[in-house]
Amino acid sequence: MLHVNENYSKIQASYLFTEIAHRVAAHQAANPGAKIIRLGIGDVTEPLAPAVVEAMHKAVDDEAGREHFHGYGPEQGYAFLREKAAEADFKARGVDIQADEIFISDGAKCDCGNIQELFADDVAIAVGDPVYPVYVDTNVMAGRTGKNEGGRYSGLQYLTCNAANGFVPSPASLDPAQPKPDIVYLCYPNNPTGAVATLDQLQEWVDWARANKALILFDAAYEAFIRDPAIPHSIYECTGARECAIEFRSYSKTAGFTGIRCGYTVVPKGLMAYAADGSQVELRPMWTRRQTTKFNGASYITQRGAEAIYSKDGAEQTKATIDFYLENAKLVKNALKDLGYTVAGGDNSPYIWVDVKGSSWDFFDKLLKEANVVTTPGAGFGRAGEGYIRISAFNSRENVLEAIERLKKTL
Amino acid sequence: MLHVNENYSKIQASYLFTEIAHRVAAHQAANPGAKIIRLGIGDVTEPLAPAVVEAMHKAVDDEAGREHFHGYGPEQGYAFLREKAAEADFKARGVDIQADEIFISDGAKCDCGNIQELFADDVAIAVGDPVYPVYVDTNVMAGRTGKNEGGRYSGLQYLTCNAANGFVPSPASLDPAQPKPDIVYLCYPNNPTGAVATLDQLQEWVDWARANKALILFDAAYEAFIRDPAIPHSIYECTGARECAIEFRSYSKTAGFTGIRCGYTVVPKGLMAYAADGSQVELRPMWTRRQTTKFNGASYITQRGAEAIYSKDGAEQTKATIDFYLENAKLVKNALKDLGYTVAGGDNSPYIWVDVKGSSWDFFDKLLKEANVVTTPGAGFGRAGEGYIRISAFNSRENVLEAIERLKKTL
Repeated sequence: MLHVNENYSKIQASYLFTEIAHRVAAHQAANPGAKIIRLGIGDVTEPLAPAVVEAMHKAVDDEAGREHFHGYGPEQGYAFLREKAAEADFKARGVDIQADEIFISDGAKCDCGNIQELFADDVAIAVGDPVYPVYVDTNVMAGRTGKNEGGRYSGLQYLTCNAANGFVPSPASLDPAQPKPDIVYLCYPNNPTGAVATLDQLQEWVDWARANKALILFDAAYEAFIRDPAIPHSIYECTGARECAIEFRSYSKTAGFTGIRCGYTVVPKGLMAYAADGSQVELRPMWTRRQTTKFNGASYITQRGAEAIYSKDGAEQTKATIDFYLENAKLVKNALKDLGYTVAGGDNSPYIWVDVKGSSWDFFDKLLKEANVVTTPGAGFGRAGEGYIRISAFNSRENVLEAIERLKKTL
Repeated sequence: MLHVNENYSKIQASYLFTEIAHRVAAHQAANPGAKIIRLGIGDVTEPLAPAVVEAMHKAVDDEAGREHFHGYGPEQGYAFLREKAAEADFKARGVDIQADEIFISDGAKCDCGNIQELFADDVAIAVGDPVYPVYVDTNVMAGRTGKNEGGRYSGLQYLTCNAANGFVPSPASLDPAQPKPDIVYLCYPNNPTGAVATLDQLQEWVDWARANKALILFDAAYEAFIRDPAIPHSIYECTGARECAIEFRSYSKTAGFTGIRCGYTVVPKGLMAYAADGSQVELRPMWTRRQTTKFNGASYITQRGAEAIYSKDGAEQTKATIDFYLENAKLVKNALKDLGYTVAGGDNSPYIWVDVKGSSWDFFDKLLKEANVVTTPGAGFGRAGEGYIRISAFNSRENVLEAIERLKKTL
């Protein structure tokens, strides 16, 4: 008799964005004429950079003839992309990351989920609260938690991110009554709160991880939105981070690749974990094995498109698009402040985190029904997200201005 | 202290194709002038169909403007592709598979590996021998086997595929002394032997699976190479297969998509497995959950390219390319027969399986060093592959004819 992985049954019935989609669809069905503006799910709306479009057309043509045809590529990604990412994303900022420490993939979501296959079933995990649900759900599916009670899974340590700590918890906030985490997920600029961490705040986590033989899984999917020169873009800007951190990067928001699918994971040489007998095991060869066995590389066309982000034109064009989204964020943030709301995020991030002084889902429903504006209820990201909504700056200027007008009328 | 998944240490040091790559590189380094012909790894060499190229150019242009821009797509794939696959690959052959039972992905290799996340850690697995290594390695990494001893993992049941059974083992060959398998991997047309299974042979497995509450994982990656109208293309041509089988499809060999990355998995509605308490659990919602949580869909451009395979022009063009590879296979097969070798496969498959009457790796090395021709040693696919080599028909006609001339001189 074929037995299932029963950990799946622990997962809450509905993925957050599925539930939102249902409510939006029901509202649209009941109000066919309503022009709904979506500031919910963090999906980009602006076209790809012309340099990327040109590179992908060329790559399609490569596949149209024998001479430049590319079949199976390296599972870790093509050198042309790994080398440019190492140069522009790290070396140019004085950070020591080499091309062969960069593993190209079809997206950071996949890598965030797949990375935990490298670790023992009983490693202890800590996550922020609120949190990007993928960190939690993938560990639930792998059996590293107990059941969900009151919105939290037993066996998982939640680090509350709130106004009191500026939405950036420190290692001092770890609960000594719970097992010491072996893995801590950090995400800055943060999804969903839009908070950024200073170099000192990240260094605290790196020092803690080194001292405790723990690992930081650092999600830098939104680093391109950082405009404050004092804010670190990479965990590897911290001293010693090569010894205790894996970093995820994404071209989804950086370059509008949500439909194109590309990102990468950095696993430094010499980064160690431990066998049960206490002997050291290097993680980079394990990730190489995982990717070569269960993945076949990102599309050649996609990788050529990603390469073009690093060209002079591509870099300028993608920066201009991010500047555009950041201006959207500023408009929304200022409008909500003017309406008397306490607002976080939105400066070095496409997300605005609004204290709604009440139920997240009630506020979500109010904005949906009265303003035809879709947001994301903070409670969907965790218990500590209750009382907030996340507003995404990914939309056209016209829609953002229209949404602001409607919010002013409704609130 | 962060503990690793120690199952990774059970995997043999080198992936088969990595070892081959090393030997070929060493030979090329020692003989810089040698013109090596590669009939080893099953990678395509012919360009994409013009209809596919045109569709992908159009899709790139869609991403270049706001109006037709596609961001995040459905994790299960776009309806435009799922519907065409259901129609052409199943309904047109009288097989009842619906669009919402088809899950588009970035390739069958990924799906074959990821599907086992749905099952309990202690399910018993049976595979063919020789076998596509991914079925085995992904289960080793998940802890479903013991150590590798003498080329086989303990705790895994191997079904010998040899000349005596026409390389198609039946349920009667299961060893009653071993735990009854909960999952059986079947692959027809087979990689590596090129064998095909008749409807009666597949029906025997389906009947066995239904009677034993077991699951068949059916890999149909090479179905497009079938030319004999009596040979089934899908496990669902068997009565009752919807109740006991998941099928993997790939556009890699069908349409030259090895560098483009697309395939799909069929999980029929009503396909059940069991909780520990014996209650039924439907697998399709579990796979939906797995894909929505850990995957973000295949590239939009890729999916538009795959859609074009189903257009009139696209279907004719891709069939012509497969006919071309099949003619290559016929030429190689006949040449080896003329040289006195016993040869299987190559009729409804791009792979020719040659009985070399000696060591696989010795024969591989002989062909590499004396003929500058790369093949794949059968022993790399399992103990029962010893004594064979696999020759792939994926190459230009010119190279295939040249390789045949060299084989004639060497053998």
